[in-house]
Amino acid sequence: MFMHQKRLQYTVRVSETNPGLANLMLEQFGGPQGELAAAMRYFTQALGEDDPGRKDLLLDIATEELSHLEVIGSIVAMLTRGAKGKLAEGAQEQAELYRTINGAGNDSHVTQVLYGGGPALTNSGGVPWTAAYIDSIGDPTCDLRSNIAAESRAKITYERLINPTADPGVREALGFLMTREVAHQKSFEKALYAIEPNFPAGKQPGDPRFSDTYFNMSQDGAEHRGPWNQGPQWRYVSDRSQQSAVDGGDGSASVQLGAEEAATLERLRARTKSDPSVGPVTGADLGAGPGAGSTTLGNDGPSASRAR
Amino acid sequence: MFMHQKRLQYTVRVSETNPGLANLMLEQFGGPQGELAAAMRYFTQALGEDDPGRKDLLLDIATEELSHLEVIGSIVAMLTRGAKGKLAEGAQEQAELYRTINGAGNDSHVTQVLYGGGPALTNSGGVPWTAAYIDSIGDPTCDLRSNIAAESRAKITYERLINPTADPGVREALGFLMTREVAHQKSFEKALYAIEPNFPAGKQPGDPRFSDTYFNMSQDGAEHRGPWNQGPQWRYVSDRSQQSAVDGGDGSASVQLGAEEAATLERLRARTKSDPSVGPVTGADLGAGPGAGSTTLGNDGPSASRAR
Amino acid sequence: MFMHQKRLQYTVRVSETNPGLANLMLEQFGGPQGELAAAMRYFTQALGEDDPGRKDLLLDIATEELSHLEVIGSIVAMLTRGAKGKLAEGAQEQAELYRTINGAGNDSHVTQVLYGGGPALTNSGGVPWTAAYIDSIGDPTCDLRSNIAAESRAKITYERLINPTADPGVREALGFLMTREVAHQKSFEKALYAIEPNFPAGKQPGDPRFSDTYFNMSQDGAEHRGPWNQGPQWRYVSDRSQQSAVDGGDGSASVQLGAEEAATLERLRARTKSDPSVGPVTGADLGAGPGAGSTTLGNDGPSASRAR
Amino acid sequence: MFMHQKRLQYTVRVSETNPGLANLMLEQFGGPQGELAAAMRYFTQALGEDDPGRKDLLLDIATEELSHLEVIGSIVAMLTRGAKGKLAEGAQEQAELYRTINGAGNDSHVTQVLYGGGPALTNSGGVPWTAAYIDSIGDPTCDLRSNIAAESRAKITYERLINPTADPGVREALGFLMTREVAHQKSFEKALYAIEPNFPAGKQPGDPRFSDTYFNMSQDGAEHRGPWNQGPQWRYVSDRSQQSAVDGGDGSASVQLGAEEAATLERLRARTKSDPSVGPVTGADLGAGPGAGSTTLGNDGPSASRAR
Amino acid sequence: MFMHQKRLQYTVRVSETNPGLANLMLEQFGGPQGELAAAMRYFTQALGEDDPGRKDLLLDIATEELSHLEVIGSIVAMLTRGAKGKLAEGAQEQAELYRTINGAGNDSHVTQVLYGGGPALTNSGGVPWTAAYIDSIGDPTCDLRSNIAAESRAKITYERLINPTADPGVREALGFLMTREVAHQKSFEKALYAIEPNFPAGKQPGDPRFSDTYFNMSQDGAEHRGPWNQGPQWRYVSDRSQQSAVDGGDGSASVQLGAEEAATLERLRARTKSDPSVGPVTGADLGAGPGAGSTTLGNDGPSASRAR
Amino acid sequence: MFMHQKRLQYTVRVSETNPGLANLMLEQFGGPQGELAAAMRYFTQALGEDDPGRKDLLLDIATEELSHLEVIGSIVAMLTRGAKGKLAEGAQEQAELYRTINGAGNDSHVTQVLYGGGPALTNSGGVPWTAAYIDSIGDPTCDLRSNIAAESRAKITYERLINPTADPGVREALGFLMTREVAHQKSFEKALYAIEPNFPAGKQPGDPRFSDTYFNMSQDGAEHRGPWNQGPQWRYVSDRSQQSAVDGGDGSASVQLGAEEAATLERLRARTKSDPSVGPVTGADLGAGPGAGSTTLGNDGPSASRAR
Repeated sequence: MFMHQKRLQYTVRVSETNPGLANLMLEQFGGPQGELAAAMRYFTQALGEDDPGRKDLLLDIATEELSHLEVIGSIVAMLTRGAKGKLAEGAQEQAELYRTINGAGNDSHVTQVLYGGGPALTNSGGVPWTAAYIDSIGDPTCDLRSNIAAESRAKITYERLINPTADPGVREALGFLMTREVAHQKSFEKALYAIEPNFPAGKQPGDPRFSDTYFNMSQDGAEHRGPWNQGPQWRYVSDRSQQSAVDGGDGSASVQLGAEEAATLERLRARTKSDPSVGPVTGADLGAGPGAGSTTLGNDGPSASRAR
Repeated sequence: MFMHQKRLQYTVRVSETNPGLANLMLEQFGGPQGELAAAMRYFTQALGEDDPGRKDLLLDIATEELSHLEVIGSIVAMLTRGAKGKLAEGAQEQAELYRTINGAGNDSHVTQVLYGGGPALTNSGGVPWTAAYIDSIGDPTCDLRSNIAAESRAKITYERLINPTADPGVREALGFLMTREVAHQKSFEKALYAIEPNFPAGKQPGDPRFSDTYFNMSQDGAEHRGPWNQGPQWRYVSDRSQQSAVDGGDGSASVQLGAEEAATLERLRARTKSDPSVGPVTGADLGAGPGAGSTTLGNDGPSASRAR
Repeated sequence: MFMHQKRLQYTVRVSETNPGLANLMLEQFGGPQGELAAAMRYFTQALGEDDPGRKDLLLDIATEELSHLEVIGSIVAMLTRGAKGKLAEGAQEQAELYRTINGAGNDSHVTQVLYGGGPALTNSGGVPWTAAYIDSIGDPTCDLRSNIAAESRAKITYERLINPTADPGVREALGFLMTREVAHQKSFEKALYAIEPNFPAGKQPGDPRFSDTYFNMSQDGAEHRGPWNQGPQWRYVSDRSQQSAVDGGDGSASVQLGAEEAATLERLRARTKSDPSVGPVTGADLGAGPGAGSTTLGNDGPSASRAR
Repeated sequence: MFMHQKRLQYTVRVSETNPGLANLMLEQFGGPQGELAAAMRYFTQALGEDDPGRKDLLLDIATEELSHLEVIGSIVAMLTRGAKGKLAEGAQEQAELYRTINGAGNDSHVTQVLYGGGPALTNSGGVPWTAAYIDSIGDPTCDLRSNIAAESRAKITYERLINPTADPGVREALGFLMTREVAHQKSFEKALYAIEPNFPAGKQPGDPRFSDTYFNMSQDGAEHRGPWNQGPQWRYVSDRSQQSAVDGGDGSASVQLGAEEAATLERLRARTKSDPSVGPVTGADLGAGPGAGSTTLGNDGPSASRAR
Repeated sequence: MFMHQKRLQYTVRVSETNPGLANLMLEQFGGPQGELAAAMRYFTQALGEDDPGRKDLLLDIATEELSHLEVIGSIVAMLTRGAKGKLAEGAQEQAELYRTINGAGNDSHVTQVLYGGGPALTNSGGVPWTAAYIDSIGDPTCDLRSNIAAESRAKITYERLINPTADPGVREALGFLMTREVAHQKSFEKALYAIEPNFPAGKQPGDPRFSDTYFNMSQDGAEHRGPWNQGPQWRYVSDRSQQSAVDGGDGSASVQLGAEEAATLERLRARTKSDPSVGPVTGADLGAGPGAGSTTLGNDGPSASRAR
Repeated sequence: MFMHQKRLQYTVRVSETNPGLANLMLEQFGGPQGELAAAMRYFTQALGEDDPGRKDLLLDIATEELSHLEVIGSIVAMLTRGAKGKLAEGAQEQAELYRTINGAGNDSHVTQVLYGGGPALTNSGGVPWTAAYIDSIGDPTCDLRSNIAAESRAKITYERLINPTADPGVREALGFLMTREVAHQKSFEKALYAIEPNFPAGKQPGDPRFSDTYFNMSQDGAEHRGPWNQGPQWRYVSDRSQQSAVDGGDGSASVQLGAEEAATLERLRARTKSDPSVGPVTGADLGAGPGAGSTTLGNDGPSASRAR
């Protein structure tokens, strides 16, 4: 069960209102790398987790991320407070209010007009948060790797918010939130490596013919290799003819059809068959107009008639 | 530039048509862990990448994932071929065709009716693919971690498709695709650790007060600890009073308002203020009907009049 | 700040695993009327709220809804536990496992294959949760009305889940969750009517010419009237000629263009103008084939030539 | 059946083109609180409604909302007419045209470049309209409450558009549209209270143990109470120990597994178990680089070997 | 199988960085009319296609569109290179960096903060690409028509990007991409008309009573007719009474219910029936406050009591 | 302005309820090819259209499509009427009701549980309708082509619904709706060809070097050519070296950076540079466990130490 206490995890002190800055902050409120995504990622993993240690870890961090969502949302609320009052009360002359709404040079007009200055679960571009951002799949070695990656992304996103922010109180709170992502990443790393083995994920063994092969698919220019494709571990395949149909077959796709299926498909094929022999007059030919040059018309020229 | 050759990377041999199985396979075609997501993840990273080795690596693997998209899509096309013909030609009596469409027990009816049996960029539940699945953010240490996690998830998803599949040709092709995810994960791991240092991501240093702290947010039950929160590295904080307002402030959120802003907000507050002293009759009271017991009515009982 | 304690708000006792039932339950986990929507609705409102009483109310209920999300998610996790193990371990023969995945007659195949049996933030049809479900706009009289409506919808959705559920433990937990929605609705009703006046929302007065008018837009059949359009309050307008251009103008849309704008638009109009005088041969005429009857061809019949 | 007549419901007179203002107006065209959402909300309810009076009411208002969609869309079309011509005809020098497109300070660049200046079914931030905005669930007491709330939200959104608009013709048309939302709310209120009883929704009775309880979930600060949680109606629960496991159980989640299910799960657990006793070297340890301080490395320091 | 070679299909020479221009270009990268949509449209059609000529055509063009995606993405990457470095390195003073991020007057702040300056699969407004943009349905005469339309839209979108672009290298590359859309349209036109007949699509014949009828649904103003509704081909129906119930029935919807179904529905109807005879006091009446005029209150005035 | 009359455009006579069939029908209600998409496509085009004939045409057909939306929605409402009553009234024993909800073998469980049996604006798979389905871009030659394609797709989708439907009344109504799509396609074809010229769209001329070139991008197998790439019109390019860098340049992407930009980027490059010379131990190496074979470990084998 969740409980709430009225103090924030970190005190938020904003120097002045700024709806444009508020809007950038939404990236970590309702954006793909933001705190709701983090909280829900760990919370839903916790619910499906059987291992008692990991379950506890996931609940601890999910709960902290919810508390971070509250901190970043409070920053947004403070920064938009001025704009909120102006619009709700119609406190400015119309043209001035229009400039307030549109003047930030970013999408804060959505935040103001649609959401009334309240923190909305969108990213800084106004795109609503979606659970499609969450990539949990119910396997601990995968989900922990996903969590590690997610924490590193959140760290960088906070860094990108801190860099253009001058307000010292906002910077300080963002710095706290950023630091916690680093700490969480460390915990998830420990939890991943406490599973032995953790690579590769799952039970199905790979096909040994292909598990240490590297296909050099991008060619015709300088090759830049590194440990990811050179060294004794790797079989490096540049020969195009050895990159396709690697099973030794003909590289086609086939299916065995029942007799009725085959007959039905044959009817469909015949009905929709393409006749490669004619040069039909087309809609584009009609549409190109009488003055169009021959290259844009039917293969047999503009006088061709389909009825022939 | 991309080029195409007509052989698949792996030969696809399907034993018999099966629209229900086809539908499950869509998970790796247009699903969140599928091959389009993989290809686009690496391709867009490659475009923004400056480091020549990583750029080449990303283009190699992006191109291979596109080739995998073709393999899994060809499996889908083979498996739906029978259903496609039946529906297009109206080849069955109506009730029988209805059973064909609805009989698989999964969402293959969408694939058939809406997409005509062609492979569609949806997951197995019919949800259209969205770029919201891609979490690239333009920092190599983050993006490589995301790629590592993505490859591990794709590996498991293939495993979940192989387990319930009896068709030997489909199993074999899925096995190839699954194995390649393992190989790709190895490459991305090498590429990550070829950047030194790679942790933590970015430039901004963390706040040392909070970078090795673990907040025990979930309590009141058995605690299950592990290396993720115990050992000399960690400061473990269970005391609730030390979990909030960790900066030493009062845990509130505040903003300095200009005089006009403050006055405007005061007007807004007064206009929408909540009067805690009265027990108003509400819409629910009206709607509960004359026979409703007193507990569901206004605080002063059903005879209360708002006009008093 | 949020805290978590390890006991659920309501004990969950499930009699047997059932992935199909689990899938229906997702409606209240990641569905539009579900607990995440409720929690986020109230939490984001709380962040933007100035009135101390309403802010406290919103935080109380938001926190409880998060606790409900945990209860319903735990029900899902218990119900899918069997299917999760079978798929992860490949514990059944292939065809049998295929039947397990597809046998529920609903979308539980998505839950199993994509999410590995973990509770996912989707509705019962596999559609990911989106913040587009949340309709908060930052005005308390609107948001409270939205909350009242949301609670009534959640109540009914629980009722629809209880009716087809035979498992007594699941029924009991659902009954608790349903009851709480009723209690929350009562609270939000009280909070709405504690604002005086609360109707109409906002400050801008309506235009008195139109605020008590009812336009009878659907006609030509039996009229069924009621207090929503009859009685002394209403001006009931059935005369079609009085329903349009109600301002007394000509009902057109116009804009004053600058000279350059007008000239530019005139060029655009001329370039894309439609010539109503000819009966052009069209692509459909070409495509109908030589045997097509005249009614499907150009107005002047199949011998018409565009070049004339 | 729908019919159209060529006069608008309200004459639209725009003083001058303004693509930035046009873009704000989209909020009521293709935004979540806009006229398409309103029209579709009532129209789909009408189709499923059996009660003759309510069905008629819903069709009347749905039809009027479609007519409003036409009014607001015509305002958008007039306001963008200048920009549309300039871009289509390439009527300005490149840098000047670039400024036209980007100069509004809001998302009108999307409207111009992607939609060619035509009214698009997006909100002011360019987010496409989605039926996820509609919360109808097929129960009249819920749907009418949702409609009441929706009308109040639309009223406020119009108010927010009127406030920053100086153009008198646009203001007047917006005023008409805003007023009609108030009238519609009145009708829906009457229709709700014409159902007796209408609260609580549905048939399933609540559990009397919990229907008048208020859980004080947010604590540790000033409590601000009001009629929503005080008075004889309410049982107010602040004691944390009485907020969880309120059924009197242990607050856990459990399921009875079959023997095979239990054995399979046990195998899964063993395979993915977390070993809490070791302090493994992790990827973050490797990535922190040789100069990293000990606090960011493995619990036992950098010399720790996993193989021990 | 796909292969990649390191040269672009067209050389990209950008004169200077410009994040605002980069953002507009995203329209053809991850926008609805962009190159990913084109590539995936043709690629998925190719997989389901049986006709060897069309399959080859679709693969040729799909592969070229992927190569175009690389060209337009490379333009974006070059244009954002400056902004990317500034933000990642924190190379500017905070307020200056804030202006860099917000100064373009469009959504490039999303591209910078969220995506780190890398090309993201969004449109110019930051909306993530979705497969909902693709309208392929697995019938060649439909899909080719869809392709023809898509190519014409892509042509215009490039034109709209060229017009406001001053950079000669970008203009030149855009000109190449635009031209190729024209060439592709020609090919798809030829392929459509090589199927005979291709109109109407499919096998089911239309109902001859309605296949050449034109319903004049928009009336009461000047009628502007043309070949789309006049000439011997068309039956033009303006009489409103002949536009509805055109089958000669009563225009109602009905279903034959089983006895139990009928009885159940009757219970539902009775339970939720609307009583048209009373003028109930509503929530809006309560909320309008004591000073509200009678027109906004219950039909019987403010003293009406529901309990009567 | 829109008006409604109570008769449907076509009488709907359903023989018996069938929630599974209802669900398939949703494809034409809230699906991508359905009637809402059609109505909104033409309606929004009409609003932005200046040409009087086309504007009238678009309004006529938009209005008819709305009337079709009502017909197909009424079919859905009739087919779900039985299931709606059963669930709302709890009229069946629990297990039986569970079978009713899940027994159709398609997504009708969403329609029932979430939408209460009312017609919802989703496709047959439960995916909410989105304006992303609409591809109008404000150019008449493009939009008319899009409309032509859309009508052909709608025709086929109706055909796919008719084929598996046995109920004669439903078949008849679907036949009417299908026929009207054919008639609409004819009208849009006439309107397209009444613009002269209509191909290519827009004003910008193509680059003559590339407008009649066909790049044979898919090779290494049988080539199947046709009028789309052979004949005097086409320059057919199979030589791979002539397919890339077709401008004669080097096929690279470049941008001229300012000095400060270059310096900043150099710092970024140095900080995140990949060292190709080492064979680092990776997380996968750690995670493969002590028993892993050498091929899955670091290039220098398992004894390699990063600290060297």
